[in-house]
Amino acid sequence: MSFNTFGHMFRMTTFGESHGPAIGCVVDGCPPGIALAPADIQVFLDKRRPGQSRFTTQRQEPDQVKILSGVFEDDKTGGPVTTGTPIMLLIDNVDQRSKDYAEIRDKFRPGHADYTYQAKYGVRDYRGGGRSSARETAARVAAGAVARKVIPQVRVRGALVQIGPHKIDRVNWDWAEVERNPFFCPDAKAAAKWEAYLDGVRKKGSSCGAIIEVTASGVPAGWGAPVYGKLDQDIAAAMMSINAVKGVEIGAGFAAAALSGEENADEIRMRHGKPDFASNHAGGILGGISSGQDIVVRFVVKPTSSILSIRKTVTAAGEDVDISTKGRHDPCVGIRAVPVGEAMLVLVLADHFLRHRGQVG
Amino acid sequence: MSFNTFGHMFRMTTFGESHGPAIGCVVDGCPPGIALAPADIQVFLDKRRPGQSRFTTQRQEPDQVKILSGVFEDDKTGGPVTTGTPIMLLIDNVDQRSKDYAEIRDKFRPGHADYTYQAKYGVRDYRGGGRSSARETAARVAAGAVARKVIPQVRVRGALVQIGPHKIDRVNWDWAEVERNPFFCPDAKAAAKWEAYLDGVRKKGSSCGAIIEVTASGVPAGWGAPVYGKLDQDIAAAMMSINAVKGVEIGAGFAAAALSGEENADEIRMRHGKPDFASNHAGGILGGISSGQDIVVRFVVKPTSSILSIRKTVTAAGEDVDISTKGRHDPCVGIRAVPVGEAMLVLVLADHFLRHRGQVG
Amino acid sequence: MSFNTFGHMFRMTTFGESHGPAIGCVVDGCPPGIALAPADIQVFLDKRRPGQSRFTTQRQEPDQVKILSGVFEDDKTGGPVTTGTPIMLLIDNVDQRSKDYAEIRDKFRPGHADYTYQAKYGVRDYRGGGRSSARETAARVAAGAVARKVIPQVRVRGALVQIGPHKIDRVNWDWAEVERNPFFCPDAKAAAKWEAYLDGVRKKGSSCGAIIEVTASGVPAGWGAPVYGKLDQDIAAAMMSINAVKGVEIGAGFAAAALSGEENADEIRMRHGKPDFASNHAGGILGGISSGQDIVVRFVVKPTSSILSIRKTVTAAGEDVDISTKGRHDPCVGIRAVPVGEAMLVLVLADHFLRHRGQVG
Amino acid sequence: MSFNTFGHMFRMTTFGESHGPAIGCVVDGCPPGIALAPADIQVFLDKRRPGQSRFTTQRQEPDQVKILSGVFEDDKTGGPVTTGTPIMLLIDNVDQRSKDYAEIRDKFRPGHADYTYQAKYGVRDYRGGGRSSARETAARVAAGAVARKVIPQVRVRGALVQIGPHKIDRVNWDWAEVERNPFFCPDAKAAAKWEAYLDGVRKKGSSCGAIIEVTASGVPAGWGAPVYGKLDQDIAAAMMSINAVKGVEIGAGFAAAALSGEENADEIRMRHGKPDFASNHAGGILGGISSGQDIVVRFVVKPTSSILSIRKTVTAAGEDVDISTKGRHDPCVGIRAVPVGEAMLVLVLADHFLRHRGQVG
Repeated sequence: MSFNTFGHMFRMTTFGESHGPAIGCVVDGCPPGIALAPADIQVFLDKRRPGQSRFTTQRQEPDQVKILSGVFEDDKTGGPVTTGTPIMLLIDNVDQRSKDYAEIRDKFRPGHADYTYQAKYGVRDYRGGGRSSARETAARVAAGAVARKVIPQVRVRGALVQIGPHKIDRVNWDWAEVERNPFFCPDAKAAAKWEAYLDGVRKKGSSCGAIIEVTASGVPAGWGAPVYGKLDQDIAAAMMSINAVKGVEIGAGFAAAALSGEENADEIRMRHGKPDFASNHAGGILGGISSGQDIVVRFVVKPTSSILSIRKTVTAAGEDVDISTKGRHDPCVGIRAVPVGEAMLVLVLADHFLRHRGQVG
Repeated sequence: MSFNTFGHMFRMTTFGESHGPAIGCVVDGCPPGIALAPADIQVFLDKRRPGQSRFTTQRQEPDQVKILSGVFEDDKTGGPVTTGTPIMLLIDNVDQRSKDYAEIRDKFRPGHADYTYQAKYGVRDYRGGGRSSARETAARVAAGAVARKVIPQVRVRGALVQIGPHKIDRVNWDWAEVERNPFFCPDAKAAAKWEAYLDGVRKKGSSCGAIIEVTASGVPAGWGAPVYGKLDQDIAAAMMSINAVKGVEIGAGFAAAALSGEENADEIRMRHGKPDFASNHAGGILGGISSGQDIVVRFVVKPTSSILSIRKTVTAAGEDVDISTKGRHDPCVGIRAVPVGEAMLVLVLADHFLRHRGQVG
Repeated sequence: MSFNTFGHMFRMTTFGESHGPAIGCVVDGCPPGIALAPADIQVFLDKRRPGQSRFTTQRQEPDQVKILSGVFEDDKTGGPVTTGTPIMLLIDNVDQRSKDYAEIRDKFRPGHADYTYQAKYGVRDYRGGGRSSARETAARVAAGAVARKVIPQVRVRGALVQIGPHKIDRVNWDWAEVERNPFFCPDAKAAAKWEAYLDGVRKKGSSCGAIIEVTASGVPAGWGAPVYGKLDQDIAAAMMSINAVKGVEIGAGFAAAALSGEENADEIRMRHGKPDFASNHAGGILGGISSGQDIVVRFVVKPTSSILSIRKTVTAAGEDVDISTKGRHDPCVGIRAVPVGEAMLVLVLADHFLRHRGQVG
Repeated sequence: MSFNTFGHMFRMTTFGESHGPAIGCVVDGCPPGIALAPADIQVFLDKRRPGQSRFTTQRQEPDQVKILSGVFEDDKTGGPVTTGTPIMLLIDNVDQRSKDYAEIRDKFRPGHADYTYQAKYGVRDYRGGGRSSARETAARVAAGAVARKVIPQVRVRGALVQIGPHKIDRVNWDWAEVERNPFFCPDAKAAAKWEAYLDGVRKKGSSCGAIIEVTASGVPAGWGAPVYGKLDQDIAAAMMSINAVKGVEIGAGFAAAALSGEENADEIRMRHGKPDFASNHAGGILGGISSGQDIVVRFVVKPTSSILSIRKTVTAAGEDVDISTKGRHDPCVGIRAVPVGEAMLVLVLADHFLRHRGQVG
């Protein structure tokens, strides 16, 4: 029963609402003896942090993480290391302007979880979406930073490959470029065009969707498990658990429908003493188990539902009304989903590393 | 730790290999007092059963299910009802021609799990793919039939919406047509064209992929849970756990990237005393919780990797070799994935029904 | 995988070390709409709080609980109610005199977890036992207070029934007396004698064990589940998870060995329209399921291992040494285990209430 | 949610009723490459099998186990080895005389689960107790035999240490004697006396309780986990999940209440380069983690509730009636609980071995 817990052996339990005093998570099952300081986590939180360009929400959150448990001074280095006990990561909420949300207390914003939370629970923290706010993803990013230290041999990187209808050109792919533009875009030319496009969207008070690609290099063959412990099953769950995500695909993904078996099944030859694949339509996973190739995942983030345009909706009392959302929002929430997607992938991989080691040694 | 178990409150644990004596599952957590006879399950197994047209594998498996536990005569009707204890469903394997597979004992078939299983476990039942065979999905269909009886108010139906590069035309959608052609295709015109197309694929010894759409009607608003208990998270996991699936999407899915917030967020008006949505880009799920609209899921099945064409691969001993797979296979394994996708969706929904009832009452 | 999580549908995840900045827990799965303010929790924390008599440790911890998430103002009352999302309970550590523990950094205290933690993890927070400290039980008591509000119809009460070799006389049992003496003892005469006995133990710098009995009234017939979901199985796990507990029994418990079947099996007659039992050797549980009788559990707490007497032990470096523990400790840690035992029982019951409602409705 | 599943990484899911066609279990998470043939399991089932002396039920069940999945021929030896996939163990029910139970269809047998199952589910398989029958424990013994092969370095043995009011004399303890008498009694003199005592009980149609002690040698320091992953927590749950068990204790157990801290805390000295304990009041577990000493567990089995004497009870329709149980029963069901207790202990240990290896490596 995992309402707010993700993972099996390496697991996080998150808590907190957008406008409560704090959000955070408890990371459980972490191996002991791993050097872990707040700075190891902060660097990833800073990537996700809002307000860093005009293309993300102007909410100002320092997102300073505190480690409240689970680390202790190492005998040898004297620096903090994990002890194998739960790691509690706390992030205070600072810039909660609750009054912004007073108007929408009784109106269900279209495309948001307002109506469904109310239908399920009969009560909800409406301020900034409460628990359904993307603010919860800061806790994921923090936990993901810990997961990275569990599997340092694995490199997980993400990039935005489509914004609105505009795709990157894969021949231009340059990982270094991802750090240079405000979109995590690996294609410098595309990034330049996106800037104008997204300014247009932002000025209209509209929003657009995006597609994110996350890859993992350095995963050995053998992680994952058959049937209901599939690596791609857990990746699909991980990505779909992110706010506003409506689809996930691995390797060739939906395009595989139109391929022939000859095109799709990656041929193998020996190279440097191990199997080497001629292509990677499988996205690094066969039968739910990693093949040693790069793991390649894409997911789609729907356009931000908070928009200025007047939209039809209803109130909790059952009246037809109109709504226009004026708060501080991301015109394309998919941008900040890049570090979140990275975090979710590395969380799945760290979990499967421990699960594999447990069963197979 | 769910290597071979799916679900939380309503859960199945499957077992069995393609060419072992039997496959099956244990269904746990089923509410008591539900009428359940083998015939209730057999009807769905028959939909999935191979050898029913020239477009599926010619392996002949009667797939007769036996209920070994968990039902007992009802006080009133005298007929079998569930008792709340584990329901064991056993399906004997009959037509296992193991010799077909002797040649591939040492060769890793491209696109199959042969290599990854071997890399993980160091041993594998290579006959027909063993545990990685799509034969395991018969157990899912059987468990899904039980799940249907837990939530009779919900109607789950699936259809093939694309085969190879050929999509249906949605204006022709007719659920009744799904039962009339060998493709579970809702578009009679498309089905006619697909027949010629798939004959071509089959005669070449090639294969093609497919996209399946599964919908659920009658799900009330409120099932699912926030964050890591999201209904769509569990649906994504469910579908991705099916053999050969490489992508899952909900509602507008990947197309949502190119939509504006205005286009994507479904507007609401009151109708007959409850919220009524003007469109269903959300696919019936908002914030991980059902909205009362139809739940709409699509997943892609890659082309069958077992093909006649000669392909490059390696042996377990590390030699470069060629391989051509001659066994009895489906030219489009996606066809038989339709009843499997239905089963997985209804399993997720039955589980969430019980979880919701547990927490909220 | 529940290293630091307890429960299934109603579950808590605890974190924190004795001398870290804070301890606490995340309560997940709580039904929505339940009034919950810090004061509802504080009253139980105050019962467990150290330093309230000379018979417990003189560590001064205010144990003020903060609710950081999961509650919001109710539409009608305006007061805080649960929202169905994770409830984060934080308790700051205040009086951590870490220097007390410097001497024992390298010595494994006999009877403590020092050696086993070191053997497992290779590193440990030695200050006050770190994660193995009974301080963690404050988080259980806080979560238990939430659980009580989930099942207000159930009354859970505990008492000390033996301290060292001295048992109560059950004919003197008076629940009101439990609140009047510093031992949670239901027998006023026994309490008077215990005072002198425990003063002797305390002045010697020694310690003694205790037996606690916890009962639950108002549990209807039908909670629990067969086989591995047994109510008594989960109660046994709950009690054995408390620090220093070495045994658990239900109803007649170990005394049942010497009973005949005639004596032990509780006879039944109808009364007021429902089955009424002539005795309660079963302790309210038959076949893992509640019978409607009071649930009666006892558990034993070993004598505090921190004692003044010089004891033989070894160091982490493998040297034979002597040790005497001088910190502030409870001469009988069993006393403060009473509210902890109550908390664990009500946590199990709240979980089974939700699980039962989920499966059976 | 573990209604019928036990364990985390090494886990079994059992199914089946006393008088259904079969019982069995699915063992999941087993490491690959372990030699496993039916004979490895049969030897333990034979120890538990009824009808082997006049002191156990005369029901004749061959209890022949079939392995339906999860093993395959080893590359080198050609013999069957585990493949890492689910191991399905099936045991047919043979000697079900259902007519014996017709009379008790409507009467709730005192001390049995009849009433509570009916209260919970509204329907039950009353034949021989259905799912609540001790017959389910055959599946545990079968799974336990697999667990033994996962940790061959660990030796788990059990013995009866008390029957009715008659205890063994521990100075006479001889493990070899356990195999020589029908009671699994380690004290030859006690066994001789027990024979006469139990004949008396049997001839009266009465029954008596028993206490079983199970030990594990060869467990290294470090298995288990803090707080809610405690080794003793899981052992307590394991033993309490066995039918008719009413109490569990570790090491000194309930006797620890009357010990002083000096007596109870086991002193340590270095020996052969590792810590050596002067005593074992801890029962091999400190802070939930194994210390390297023998693990010592005791549990109590209540007297069989099926007795000839006339007892007061009620019917499902709410009438006061008398009942006398005439079926074939064990006068002391505790005897056959010895191999069951062994199985449960080794299942917990195998699970914790894998969990430890997963987290710590």
